[in-house]
Amino acid sequence: METQNNHTETLSAPLFISPADLLNQWLGHRRLTKRVIEAFPEDKFFDYSIGGMRTFADMMKEILDISGPGIKGIATDEWPAGSNWDHNAKAVASSKTEFLALWDQATEQIIAYWPQISEERFQENVLAFGMYDGQAFSTILYFIDNEIHHRAQGTVYLRSLGIEPPAFWNRD
Amino acid sequence: METQNNHTETLSAPLFISPADLLNQWLGHRRLTKRVIEAFPEDKFFDYSIGGMRTFADMMKEILDISGPGIKGIATDEWPAGSNWDHNAKAVASSKTEFLALWDQATEQIIAYWPQISEERFQENVLAFGMYDGQAFSTILYFIDNEIHHRAQGTVYLRSLGIEPPAFWNRD
Repeated sequence: METQNNHTETLSAPLFISPADLLNQWLGHRRLTKRVIEAFPEDKFFDYSIGGMRTFADMMKEILDISGPGIKGIATDEWPAGSNWDHNAKAVASSKTEFLALWDQATEQIIAYWPQISEERFQENVLAFGMYDGQAFSTILYFIDNEIHHRAQGTVYLRSLGIEPPAFWNRD
Repeated sequence: METQNNHTETLSAPLFISPADLLNQWLGHRRLTKRVIEAFPEDKFFDYSIGGMRTFADMMKEILDISGPGIKGIATDEWPAGSNWDHNAKAVASSKTEFLALWDQATEQIIAYWPQISEERFQENVLAFGMYDGQAFSTILYFIDNEIHHRAQGTVYLRSLGIEPPAFWNRD
């Protein structure tokens, strides 16, 4: 019996999560990360660190550099050069307000390019930023995991400053 | 034209990631988390904290309590009572070696129960631990995100102790 060549037959692997649901998960994380940035005092965002680590601003600049351009790259195969990363927040923003505007722009970029990525593309190998090889789903999860990772480091900075971080479970 | 009622037609949503690939992602995270535990000096694992936070041992006890039993619960609908959480590492392990043995057991539990979860089940609503409502994929991603989150907090503890954490990108 011949089967219809419909969309759900294209891939043989069973489903854990769909692209739409994964995007919703990520957008929830981005809302939480934004609240963690907002919780920092203006000066501590750009200046404070523990144990010789980077400032929270510079960590979040890394997330900015990777997330929006990463999704654009997976969608279009147009990549900025990643070999000369400059994750310096002060090079792009002189205040938290300016930084948060860039954060929102990156979120819009993710939302705009996400629907252009096919389910076949999510399974393909990509060379992200001309440097990082892996299946696209894995690369995207790395972007998200990296955001969770650095955000969590920021929550320790906040606690050490006597500030209670936004609740981890709240993604609204 | 009638279509075959094969596995890939069961769900209409397109694929971001399959259960097998998601499990592999998680197992990579669990290997990295284990290395972060191993990087702690014996006493600091159980005693050290920053800003009034929990010790890294107690955070990792939370991950132990949730991850293996959580996957068993999603697979079988048998849940331990979650309303009386006691995320006290010293109640179950008096050394890092003992704790790491529990970690490996939890990993084995995840691996054992994972194949019993159908792709339909991943999309169903579950009441995890009798308390937390959500689609199973979302609950599982929460388990993983929570592990990444607390592990990252542990890396700040390590840096503040002058210890370089294991590389975030290495999941081997």
